[in-house]
Amino acid sequence: MELPLTPTDFLVRARRLFADREGVIEHEDCERAHVFTYAQHAERAARLAQVLRDDLGVQKGDRVAWLCGNRHELLEGYFGVLLAGAVLLPLNIRLSAPELRWILDDSRAAVLIRDPALTELDPPVRELLIDGRYEERLAAQPLPWVDPPEVDENDVAEIFYTSGSTGRPKGAMLTHRSLYLHAVHSALTMSISGHDVIIHTIPLFHVNGWGTPHYMTALGGVQVMLPRFDSAEVLRLVEAERVTRLYLVPAMMTLLLNDPTFDSRDLSSLKQLSVGGAPTPPALLAEAERRFGCECICGYGMTETAPQLTKAIDKPGEPRSVRRRSTTGMPILGVDLRIFDEQDNELPWDGATAGEIRVRSNHVMAGYWEKPEETESALAGGWMHTGDVGTMSPDGFLTIVDRKKDLIISGGENISSVEVENALAEHPAVLEAEVVGVPDERWGEVPRAFVALRAGTDASADELIGFVRQRLAHFKAPKEVRIVDALPRGGTGKVLKNVLRDS
Amino acid sequence: MELPLTPTDFLVRARRLFADREGVIEHEDCERAHVFTYAQHAERAARLAQVLRDDLGVQKGDRVAWLCGNRHELLEGYFGVLLAGAVLLPLNIRLSAPELRWILDDSRAAVLIRDPALTELDPPVRELLIDGRYEERLAAQPLPWVDPPEVDENDVAEIFYTSGSTGRPKGAMLTHRSLYLHAVHSALTMSISGHDVIIHTIPLFHVNGWGTPHYMTALGGVQVMLPRFDSAEVLRLVEAERVTRLYLVPAMMTLLLNDPTFDSRDLSSLKQLSVGGAPTPPALLAEAERRFGCECICGYGMTETAPQLTKAIDKPGEPRSVRRRSTTGMPILGVDLRIFDEQDNELPWDGATAGEIRVRSNHVMAGYWEKPEETESALAGGWMHTGDVGTMSPDGFLTIVDRKKDLIISGGENISSVEVENALAEHPAVLEAEVVGVPDERWGEVPRAFVALRAGTDASADELIGFVRQRLAHFKAPKEVRIVDALPRGGTGKVLKNVLRDS
Repeated sequence: MELPLTPTDFLVRARRLFADREGVIEHEDCERAHVFTYAQHAERAARLAQVLRDDLGVQKGDRVAWLCGNRHELLEGYFGVLLAGAVLLPLNIRLSAPELRWILDDSRAAVLIRDPALTELDPPVRELLIDGRYEERLAAQPLPWVDPPEVDENDVAEIFYTSGSTGRPKGAMLTHRSLYLHAVHSALTMSISGHDVIIHTIPLFHVNGWGTPHYMTALGGVQVMLPRFDSAEVLRLVEAERVTRLYLVPAMMTLLLNDPTFDSRDLSSLKQLSVGGAPTPPALLAEAERRFGCECICGYGMTETAPQLTKAIDKPGEPRSVRRRSTTGMPILGVDLRIFDEQDNELPWDGATAGEIRVRSNHVMAGYWEKPEETESALAGGWMHTGDVGTMSPDGFLTIVDRKKDLIISGGENISSVEVENALAEHPAVLEAEVVGVPDERWGEVPRAFVALRAGTDASADELIGFVRQRLAHFKAPKEVRIVDALPRGGTGKVLKNVLRDS
Repeated sequence: MELPLTPTDFLVRARRLFADREGVIEHEDCERAHVFTYAQHAERAARLAQVLRDDLGVQKGDRVAWLCGNRHELLEGYFGVLLAGAVLLPLNIRLSAPELRWILDDSRAAVLIRDPALTELDPPVRELLIDGRYEERLAAQPLPWVDPPEVDENDVAEIFYTSGSTGRPKGAMLTHRSLYLHAVHSALTMSISGHDVIIHTIPLFHVNGWGTPHYMTALGGVQVMLPRFDSAEVLRLVEAERVTRLYLVPAMMTLLLNDPTFDSRDLSSLKQLSVGGAPTPPALLAEAERRFGCECICGYGMTETAPQLTKAIDKPGEPRSVRRRSTTGMPILGVDLRIFDEQDNELPWDGATAGEIRVRSNHVMAGYWEKPEETESALAGGWMHTGDVGTMSPDGFLTIVDRKKDLIISGGENISSVEVENALAEHPAVLEAEVVGVPDERWGEVPRAFVALRAGTDASADELIGFVRQRLAHFKAPKEVRIVDALPRGGTGKVLKNVLRDS
C-alpha cells in the first residue's frame, strides 16, 4: 500500500493520539498566556485552512507568506497552510521592506499573514493580519476539522528564500516527502521522543525550524513558543516548563552563557543542546557542556537540505571525545554525504583531504523556485553541491574547512557578500567594494567591507554603513568599513578575498 | 530530490559510518564464535550477492528462499539477497517437508539457501547449503563490495508466507518502501538508538523479524544471533553481551521467567521488553516488569503489515497504568488504524464499541503473491482488513477482543484452524472436524479438535493427532482431540465455534 508521505500526517496523528496533551505553550509576561492541546492546535490549523481557502480564495499550490516571529500562529500555519492545499512561505522578519516586497513579488504569493507589530510594509499582496480580528475569523469558520487534501508527496509544501553567494535570494522548494523524511530521520538520529519538551528558539521562518515543528507534533512532545529570542526568557522558560532540549546557533549559546540570570535558574531538566547554523568553536561547546550540565552536539545543514545533514551524536560503542565534538558530526539517517574534487572525483575519508561537500538525499530540495539554471547547477550530476569544503574522518565525521561560496553566516543568518557589495556600489562615491566575513565573538561572523572611493569624492565609514542599512536588513550591513586605496588583486585581476580576510 | 527508499540504504550507512562496530555476534558453546564488524557484515552480504547473481544465476526479482534459524547467515541474507536484486523469501523452519515443498513450488523460488542440519527435504529447486563449502564460496568472490542495484521503491523486496484462515498459506509481499518506512517508524516509536544491544529471539523467518534487522543496522546497534530459542541461553547472553532490549512472544516470556537460571543472571542492562505475536495476559506483563526490573510493552501486528501496528509505549505526559499495559497499545508512527462495522461505517473510540480493525499505512503489503482475489478482498476499499476485532479507547489504545478469522496463535505462530480441520478430514474415520484455539499457559493458545466419527468406524485421539503430525508442522497438530457425537450448529447450520471454545 502506497500512501503519500506528508507532514499533515503528523498533525492527524497528534490530533487522534495526543488530543489532550498540552502541546503548544506560549508565555506572556512570565506566565502561560496560550496553552493548546493537540486537539485544539489541530482545530486551529483546520480553521486557518478554512479562512485561507474559503475567505481568502487560496487555491491549491498558492504560496501563503508569513511574516511573524515564533508565535503559536506560525506553528499553526505550518500545518494549516498545507491543510488548505497551499505552500508555506515563511519570510525572515529581519529583512527590510524592499527585500520583503521583492520576495513577495518573485514568489507571486497569494496572501501574506503578518504580525502587524513587526514591520512597516506596504505589501503587494492581500494581507491577513494577526490582530484582534484574527481570532474572530478563526472562530467564524464552520468546521472544527478538515481532512487533508489529496497530495502527491512530491508536490512542493514549503519555500524558504535563502541568500546564496550571488545577489538576490532564491526560493528553495521542499516537498511533502522531503519534509516528512527529514523529520523522522532527524528525530531518530537524535533520539527524540514524545516526552521531550523544546523551545522554538530557532526562527520557524528559517530552514524549516530544523524540522522540530514536524517531529515534535508527530511524537506528541511539548513545543514552547518564543516570539523573540531573549536569553533571560529562554532560561526562565527552561525552568518553568522543564525543557529537555534546546536548539541554538552559537550566538544564542553565547548570550545564554553570559546572561546574568544563568546561575539562578534550575536547568536540570535539560538533556541536550543542539548547536548549528554556523561553525561552533570547540571551547564554546566545552564550556556549554560544563555549565549546562548536559551534552551539546554540533550539526551542519543548509536551507536546500531541509536542513539537517550532520549531527555530532555519540558514535555507538565508542566514548565521546573532544575531537568528535569539534567536528560537525556524522551524516544523519537518510543522508549520503561525500566530498569531491573539482573534477567530480570522490575523495578519501582520511581526515585530511578537503573537497566540496555534496549530498544525495530525499531531504534535498526539488529546486529553486523558477530558477531552472541555478537549480541545475546546484543539483548537477544528481548531487546537491553545498559549496562548502570539508574533510571526512575515516569513521565518517565531517569537519568544515571553508566555504566555497562567499557567504557570511552571522548569528545563524546567511549574508551574501555580493548583495552587500552591490548595495555599497550604489553609493555615488564608491568605486569598488569587497565584503568578507570576519570572526566575531557574539555573532560568529560579521561582514567587514573594504571600499575604494572614486577620485575626488569622499564618504565616511559611518555614512556608508548607514547607506547600506537603508537598503538591506540591518544585520547585513557591514559592522566595519575600511577605506582603502585599492583592492588587492591576483594575476587574473580577481580580488584576493583571502588577503582581505587576513588583513 | 527523490531517491528510492530501500533497506539496502541501511547497510550502506552501517558500512560507511559503523565500519569498525562489532555489530553481529553469534555464540557457540557459551563463547563468541562469530563476531563481525559492520564492514565485515556488509562485505559478507556483498559476497553472498555475487554468489547468487554470478554463480547461481539469480536474476532481478527472483525469489531466494531461506531455510535457516537465526544464524548470522540469514541476517546477511536480509541484505545480500536485495544486493543481488532478488526477493527474500524466508521459510518457517518448523513447517513439514510437504508444506515447504508446496511453498517453494508456489513461489517458484530460484534458489533455496538451507541449513542442512534442520530438515530432511528434497526440494524442487537448486540449493545452496550452509555447510563447510559455504565460506569457501563467499571467499571466492572477486569483490569486497557491490553497490546496490537500481530499484523502484515499490518493487517487492520480501515475501513471507502466512497462514490465514483458509487453507494454504499465502505469500505477503512487502516492498522496499514498506520495509524502509516500517523500520524507521518502529525505531522512532520505540526510541531505539545505536547504543542498543538486542538478541534476535524472534525468528527472522517470521514477519520481517519485527523490523529489527533493518533498524539495528541503520543505527549501528549490536545484533546477537540466536539460532534456536533456549531460555537459559537467552539469559546467559543478556548478561554476557549487556543486552538492552528483548523481543518476545508470550510463550518465550513464560519460559524465561520459569528458567532455573533466572535469578543467577545479571539482567541489569535490560531497558525494555517488547512482547507481541499473541495476546499477553496482564498478570504475565506485571510479573515480567517486576522480575526483569524494566518496562515491558505489548504490541500487535501481522505479517501483512510488516508487521508492527501498535505498541503500548508510554503516553507522553501521562503516567503509565495497568489499564494501558493490558491493551495492545497505540498505533505506531505511520499507521492509521481504525475500527469499522460490517457496513464499513467507522466506529467511535469509546473503549466499548467493538469492530473490525482496519489499517491504512505504507507498511501494508503490496498484496498476496499471485492471489489477486485474496489481495482485493484483504485490501478492499483501500484499507487492510485485519480480520481482528477490537475496541479503541478515547485516547487511542487498542484492545483486541476477538479474531474474526478462525486463526489460532500458538507460541507466536499462526495456525489456520481450517488447515488443521482439512488434515483431520483426510482420515477415513473422520466425519467432520472442527478446530478451535484454547488458552494455554505456555503457548498462549493451542489447537483443540472436536471430531465426529463416521458410523461404524473408530479412531483414538492419539491416532488422529499422529495423523495430523504426519501432514503438517508439529505445532499445528491439535494438542487434544475430543471425540463427539455431533458438532453444535446454529440455525443456519454453521458450526458454533464459540460453543466449542467455551466447552
